[in-house]
Amino acid sequence: MARVLTPQAEDFPRWYQDVINKAELADNGPVRGTMVIRPTGYAIWERIQSEMDDRIKLAGAQNAYFPLFIPESYLKREAQHVEGFSPELAVVTHAGGKDLDEPVVVRPTSETVIGEFMAKWVQSYRDLPLLLNQWANVVRWELRPRVFLRTSEFLWQEGHTAHASEADARAYARRILHEAYQDLMVNVLAMPVIVGRKTTAERFAGATNTYTLEAMMRDGKALQMGTSHELGQNFAKAFGIEFTGDSGTREYAWTTSWGTSTRMVGGLIMCHGDDSGLRVPPRLAPIQAHVMVVKSGDAVPETAAKLRDALRDAGVRVGFDDRTDTPFGRRAVDAELKGYPIRVEVGPRDLAAGNVVLARRSTGGKTPVPVDKAVDEIQAALAADQQALYDQALAFREAHTVDVTTPDDAVAAAATGFARIPWSALGAAGEAELNKQAVTVRCLVRADGSVPDSEDEPELTAYVARSY
Amino acid sequence: MARVLTPQAEDFPRWYQDVINKAELADNGPVRGTMVIRPTGYAIWERIQSEMDDRIKLAGAQNAYFPLFIPESYLKREAQHVEGFSPELAVVTHAGGKDLDEPVVVRPTSETVIGEFMAKWVQSYRDLPLLLNQWANVVRWELRPRVFLRTSEFLWQEGHTAHASEADARAYARRILHEAYQDLMVNVLAMPVIVGRKTTAERFAGATNTYTLEAMMRDGKALQMGTSHELGQNFAKAFGIEFTGDSGTREYAWTTSWGTSTRMVGGLIMCHGDDSGLRVPPRLAPIQAHVMVVKSGDAVPETAAKLRDALRDAGVRVGFDDRTDTPFGRRAVDAELKGYPIRVEVGPRDLAAGNVVLARRSTGGKTPVPVDKAVDEIQAALAADQQALYDQALAFREAHTVDVTTPDDAVAAAATGFARIPWSALGAAGEAELNKQAVTVRCLVRADGSVPDSEDEPELTAYVARSY
Repeated sequence: MARVLTPQAEDFPRWYQDVINKAELADNGPVRGTMVIRPTGYAIWERIQSEMDDRIKLAGAQNAYFPLFIPESYLKREAQHVEGFSPELAVVTHAGGKDLDEPVVVRPTSETVIGEFMAKWVQSYRDLPLLLNQWANVVRWELRPRVFLRTSEFLWQEGHTAHASEADARAYARRILHEAYQDLMVNVLAMPVIVGRKTTAERFAGATNTYTLEAMMRDGKALQMGTSHELGQNFAKAFGIEFTGDSGTREYAWTTSWGTSTRMVGGLIMCHGDDSGLRVPPRLAPIQAHVMVVKSGDAVPETAAKLRDALRDAGVRVGFDDRTDTPFGRRAVDAELKGYPIRVEVGPRDLAAGNVVLARRSTGGKTPVPVDKAVDEIQAALAADQQALYDQALAFREAHTVDVTTPDDAVAAAATGFARIPWSALGAAGEAELNKQAVTVRCLVRADGSVPDSEDEPELTAYVARSY
Repeated sequence: MARVLTPQAEDFPRWYQDVINKAELADNGPVRGTMVIRPTGYAIWERIQSEMDDRIKLAGAQNAYFPLFIPESYLKREAQHVEGFSPELAVVTHAGGKDLDEPVVVRPTSETVIGEFMAKWVQSYRDLPLLLNQWANVVRWELRPRVFLRTSEFLWQEGHTAHASEADARAYARRILHEAYQDLMVNVLAMPVIVGRKTTAERFAGATNTYTLEAMMRDGKALQMGTSHELGQNFAKAFGIEFTGDSGTREYAWTTSWGTSTRMVGGLIMCHGDDSGLRVPPRLAPIQAHVMVVKSGDAVPETAAKLRDALRDAGVRVGFDDRTDTPFGRRAVDAELKGYPIRVEVGPRDLAAGNVVLARRSTGGKTPVPVDKAVDEIQAALAADQQALYDQALAFREAHTVDVTTPDDAVAAAATGFARIPWSALGAAGEAELNKQAVTVRCLVRADGSVPDSEDEPELTAYVARSY
């Protein structure tokens, strides 16, 4: 069989680009750094959106929508924020046939404009917490764009909340981190993530504290899959988000923001993909079982169609391919590229024996099963393969994580994976040394794996890696 | 009771703005013409999206995403298209810290950029039809913005398809018109719509034919709720969307585009709203039954909570309000403003008699019903009120539609509603006369109400009105 993809071991970045192209996930847009998300890629994003949206709503946040265009002056009100985003801004200077009096920026994120409206809507402690989320596109001009990973425009959800106390804000930033983000990544995307706290140097521009979820890609690099920020009273002071407390005093609110984006699709590809293409975890997959007519023959199309309907009735998301005018081999390669968890092959020879064949993408096995047991077998296989993908990713990460005690050893280990090093052996100075080698502290965690309240806690572990 | 809203009869535009504010549907954004969609308004939009997305997928289209930024040169390739949109464009001239070599426009619609990619993806007749849809924000600079109706940025879905023949393209543009748009508007939004064909003068910039759905607002004006366009081979020629036919010849594809937007939320408000606020049709409503604790008392909160759970289990979308520290009257006014179809009032006096009270928003009635019959009664009331809202809107439209035979009478009738006039009595010249009076031909329909294939068909009726 002709080689479809550059093997990962030969050239990982090229493998990634090959998968994006051959599985028809996305294209580069005409304006540098933008992307076109094709139906196969978008269907994955829609499933992520749907699962994320459920979790965000369960955590009590409501969806809303704020404008794409933000007055330039808003960004300047929070000093660190504008400093962080200025180099990446796209600016509209001309609209409706004339030059604008004040240029407007295309939102790189929406803390500022949402802060302005929170200030209007929040009067009393009874209006708190105010829990908002929006699904939107944002623009951050990228000099070195990579589809899904770093694009000048990307799609995301950004949550913005205001609370009456620092403790409430912290609890909510952590609630989203664990109940929405970690739960989705682990249980739906089948991706083990290290959940921790960013160092001061790695914080979001304007935050007092940033939580992160970091996953290992199959080239050993880290990908930041999502972040949740405590913003302290920084934006509340900049935008006047004040409330009357129950004792009558005027106080500034405590705000948070948190986001995950189409970047997760890139993470999914690089965490689970192999030399045959994408592998999509069953719970996420837009198509979980792909029923294929191998070639025409006695009762073949009818059996395939019946099986498709039976699977659909059983709640399985089904694809169907009866294009027998295209060689089966080509269609099977395409199904592998797109990472459908199970291919259900219906052909005359197996059917004569009362069987269809299940080809499982995550394990590579091919098993004949009796037609009348196929639905049950497929459901069992989907559940097992969800777990198998997670286990494989976790085993890969553990095999590529090394405990070290010096910054030099951390840099060396980061060539192939993660290094774990005591934060006390590193500190801000050691961190700066790593950065010179393009290696960063991804996050800090406690010995028991939980998320620290401060980087000054004793016995913290730093995860160190190269990253996307 | 203090007046909450300006009455419709006193000042309809002000009533509209009052509803938007008091029901907390939206705010004006900081950049002129933009809007903030608040959670109450966004929940309505999300329900519309969900129902529309289902219908678009049933019609075979797949979701994708194309970039916000389009090279200025793309728009210039289709002469009528650029002429139509130039005055409304927002232009990014500066990004990533420097001036751009070629300015990019913020998409006003995506025919051009999608045409460019269709040209890449379509090679053979086997690649057709190509049926794409995207949910996105678009920007058209507005000089006279009105929240939801005309905003410089709005949210919409835009479908774009390519077909092998004009007949296929026409059939698909009509399929979306009827199966997605009309079905949603009639059966979910409870809005009667006139479905017809735009005159040449009113066509979309670049289309060979535009179909439209027009609804009457309660001030007698028309609102265009959606459009579906045949684009002929205009964009195929401009972007090179060519395919090899089954006889081996190279041919240009035939394309369509079709869109509906957050404008529908404005239409919903102005079609069903009354002097107490919004009235949301039950099938659409994010909250169908709003369970309210009138005041605390024996078994009251428990009964309310149980009823909420029973309704939820029965598949009813439920709201819950037990904020007994806020006066009940204020909460009831708020529920009316927000247009929840049914208020379920649980209070000690009625409960002592074994009853709760159903207050139906569309009919205004208040009926005590036994607690154990409440779920059934509510489900029956929701179904009846869906129909009642449609019937009321249809009766209103019929009462405000006049048959006329001269352009002068059409203008006179348009002062309070729609005029129906034979297209043969009007024609392009008569249409131009109307336009001088700010009155337009909304669409042409056949005598049997069906949609004409050409404006040259005999015995067509023109619907004439003032419009938003």
